[in-house]
Amino acid sequence: MEKTLGELAEYVGGRVKGNKDIKIRGIKTMDEAGEGYITFLANEKYEKKMNNTAASAIIVSPKFQDVDKPLLISDNPYLAFAKLVDLMMNPEIEYPKTIHETAVISPTARLGEEVSMFPHVCVGERTRLGNRVVLMPKVYLGDDCEVGDDTIIHPNVVIYANTKIGRNVTIHANSVVGSGGFGYAPDGRDYFNIPQVGRTVIEDDVVIGDNTTIQRGALDATKIGKGTKVGSQCQIAHNVEIGENTLLIGQIGIAGTAKIGSNCVLAGGVGVVGHVTVGDRVTVGARSGVTNDLPSDGTYLGYPAVSIKKMRRSQIAAQRLPELIEALRSLKRRMSDLEERLGWKKSDS
Amino acid sequence: MEKTLGELAEYVGGRVKGNKDIKIRGIKTMDEAGEGYITFLANEKYEKKMNNTAASAIIVSPKFQDVDKPLLISDNPYLAFAKLVDLMMNPEIEYPKTIHETAVISPTARLGEEVSMFPHVCVGERTRLGNRVVLMPKVYLGDDCEVGDDTIIHPNVVIYANTKIGRNVTIHANSVVGSGGFGYAPDGRDYFNIPQVGRTVIEDDVVIGDNTTIQRGALDATKIGKGTKVGSQCQIAHNVEIGENTLLIGQIGIAGTAKIGSNCVLAGGVGVVGHVTVGDRVTVGARSGVTNDLPSDGTYLGYPAVSIKKMRRSQIAAQRLPELIEALRSLKRRMSDLEERLGWKKSDS
Amino acid sequence: MEKTLGELAEYVGGRVKGNKDIKIRGIKTMDEAGEGYITFLANEKYEKKMNNTAASAIIVSPKFQDVDKPLLISDNPYLAFAKLVDLMMNPEIEYPKTIHETAVISPTARLGEEVSMFPHVCVGERTRLGNRVVLMPKVYLGDDCEVGDDTIIHPNVVIYANTKIGRNVTIHANSVVGSGGFGYAPDGRDYFNIPQVGRTVIEDDVVIGDNTTIQRGALDATKIGKGTKVGSQCQIAHNVEIGENTLLIGQIGIAGTAKIGSNCVLAGGVGVVGHVTVGDRVTVGARSGVTNDLPSDGTYLGYPAVSIKKMRRSQIAAQRLPELIEALRSLKRRMSDLEERLGWKKSDS
Repeated sequence: MEKTLGELAEYVGGRVKGNKDIKIRGIKTMDEAGEGYITFLANEKYEKKMNNTAASAIIVSPKFQDVDKPLLISDNPYLAFAKLVDLMMNPEIEYPKTIHETAVISPTARLGEEVSMFPHVCVGERTRLGNRVVLMPKVYLGDDCEVGDDTIIHPNVVIYANTKIGRNVTIHANSVVGSGGFGYAPDGRDYFNIPQVGRTVIEDDVVIGDNTTIQRGALDATKIGKGTKVGSQCQIAHNVEIGENTLLIGQIGIAGTAKIGSNCVLAGGVGVVGHVTVGDRVTVGARSGVTNDLPSDGTYLGYPAVSIKKMRRSQIAAQRLPELIEALRSLKRRMSDLEERLGWKKSDS
Repeated sequence: MEKTLGELAEYVGGRVKGNKDIKIRGIKTMDEAGEGYITFLANEKYEKKMNNTAASAIIVSPKFQDVDKPLLISDNPYLAFAKLVDLMMNPEIEYPKTIHETAVISPTARLGEEVSMFPHVCVGERTRLGNRVVLMPKVYLGDDCEVGDDTIIHPNVVIYANTKIGRNVTIHANSVVGSGGFGYAPDGRDYFNIPQVGRTVIEDDVVIGDNTTIQRGALDATKIGKGTKVGSQCQIAHNVEIGENTLLIGQIGIAGTAKIGSNCVLAGGVGVVGHVTVGDRVTVGARSGVTNDLPSDGTYLGYPAVSIKKMRRSQIAAQRLPELIEALRSLKRRMSDLEERLGWKKSDS
Repeated sequence: MEKTLGELAEYVGGRVKGNKDIKIRGIKTMDEAGEGYITFLANEKYEKKMNNTAASAIIVSPKFQDVDKPLLISDNPYLAFAKLVDLMMNPEIEYPKTIHETAVISPTARLGEEVSMFPHVCVGERTRLGNRVVLMPKVYLGDDCEVGDDTIIHPNVVIYANTKIGRNVTIHANSVVGSGGFGYAPDGRDYFNIPQVGRTVIEDDVVIGDNTTIQRGALDATKIGKGTKVGSQCQIAHNVEIGENTLLIGQIGIAGTAKIGSNCVLAGGVGVVGHVTVGDRVTVGARSGVTNDLPSDGTYLGYPAVSIKKMRRSQIAAQRLPELIEALRSLKRRMSDLEERLGWKKSDS
């Protein structure tokens, strides 16, 4: 595929600075792009690289126009980049739309049209699959599950019984959805295992990373809202509810019955204790620990997570500590000096 | 199943306040329970909900009796709840007690009675399984393993060779038991891989969560004691020994040769460095890092983890920091004022 | 196998103190070793155990010679131990060098000589395997992959399409290599999924632990350098590049496009934010969070990770906080005393 820079700008809703007739045949990183390729400024710290890249053009935001190259200027350059990768670099994958002979499908399962089932897939009793569902090798779907149209489940994913998965969902390899949560009641001697009899609901357009685990509700449901993206190695405990279009970046742990709102971003390594509520449009910085309810529309950091303003203040106070020790020492000297000049014995030291 | 409130109280060893003849047909959460259902107070912060639930009765501890509803009062309401979920909501799962034709079992393996083996299971050479063992789809059991009666292993679990698993153990999906730990000896140029020639022993009544990894001993054994519950995404390194009835809640990392006692609770995200010893009945708060031996019978927090009393003291000191800066500033002003009135030049500032 | 202590010393390049003719038939830990076994001092804190072990000999470094036992003295006792475990305790594993009948291999795959494929393995189209490659049960290798000679992949590992794996690599159970990273561009309403069209390159002699996930590049490649060892439950995001002979101990998270040098050691639980560069021979302490570039040849700790010297200084300052509060209180008393004696009203308090 080859397009002019002008055609690409039109496709992503941007504009061109420079020659809009140059031919572009793909998109590569600054370091790798050469003649005929467009590149992009992924991070402001790489700004200087723009003058050295061999790329024929660069996708930039309006504030980075000061470079002697043809530019594709976009108010959302990251989105423009994403759309061009999709247009030019993303090969269409053809799924077989057949059921491999080694797959083991319960006769009571109901399958939609054009379903693809790779080797060693298992589908349990009464489970229903929508149209064009793709189950990669060794996927296990338990009994009484439901999977919506166009959902793709990658190899070795385990879906426990009674899970409901929406349309256009992607679940990456070796993840687990709907397993039994951590529920043990001390009986004075050892522990009584609390049966986990709830279920899990994954809504439409959700993406779940690799080696992530989502546990079913103890009594009712664990829910992941429409459009939410869960990264790799996240652990989402029983009865957690996550709103829509929220990003859980990776290695996140959310304890039982916590509620996270919509349009939030939880950065890598964040932990959330049980039974707290996080509002909508909340950002939580990397490795923070949320130990209390957080209202909507704020940015929080630290453990315990506090507002970014409060966090900065206490960080600054902590950094001033050595200076404080010095100031105190100086004051002591002045005091002793004063007491001595007055001929008074120190009251204490 | 339908029982009277009085029958349920008797079943869990509690007592009734109010009409003990009302009929209960299940247990649900405060929000979801309606006519004919009993509910429970899962967390004290939900106390006010008790007046609004549509449930016919509530399980409470003796201190929460001030509500106008039939109550099932128990000294251990969480245990009472657990027992009623088990009695009323937990369907008996019927395992097939057959070996699926796609399972690959070594002819030298020895199987107990009424064993269930789902599709694509593999069982290695000389491995012995007790009675009623359930191996869900795609479980891999290496050579020379031993699995006790009534143990259930969920899909895609990998058990490396030479692992011993007790009776009534549950291992959740995609976990790994007995793999080779992180042992590399620098030889000045690169690393010599240290063969990991020990084994892993999982005692009776242990539960292991999903995507958890337990590594075999380097020379001798890694041991998980009777009744201990390991959460999801825990990493337990070579030669670790964990006592009995200890709870490792989730996303916990325990480095090589650490020893954890019995009846401990390690909250989510705790890390323990190698070669330390933690006593019995120790509680470690969420995300703490244990870097030294901890004696029995205490609660520890922070990184490095210190006693909760010490932790509180240093947290309070840290919170007083801005106030401290202000106090110092005020003292300086008084000192300057004094020096000026006395007509003395400041000794320093 | 039985060797004299002198023969063992020669094998590892060490020397004997005491009777070099005693017969050794294996190596065990201090607690377990008895007559005929050699043991080793794994950690200096166990030094006193040396006098109590029933072992016939001990491997030590030159500074621990003060014990009344035959000693094998080595400048690198850990390496000597590793070599003796390999020599005496490590049974040679015989792989079948056959392809199990349940394996599903694409007819377009190209296999080397003496390849072993266990049950339920899948190998995708055009994938090429070197000689003596071992694929344990249920390994999934996607299309267009390449695997070098003598590489072993443990059960249930998932290798996504287009991954290149070198020679003599080991990948432990339930790990994922080459899956799609976390790339979502906000479009104002929800998220546009950025296709991840790069690949993953794992160089020779790499070891990857269990339940670890390594994601392919967004556009170009994610790279793990020769001889690097990645522990369990690590998450390595898209476009990360790791140098040679670096150790990532376990539960480590490295965000997108970060670069880690050669001969580094990242201890358990370390996190590295995206787009930073860590030099060569850098050590990062357990649970630290790297938020900025780190130059070569240093040791860093904390979150944000700072030099160990700076970290110690701020830890000491923090520990002095209660003492500081007391000193300030004392100064205030002296000031008030002074003001009162001079008959002056306090200027403020």
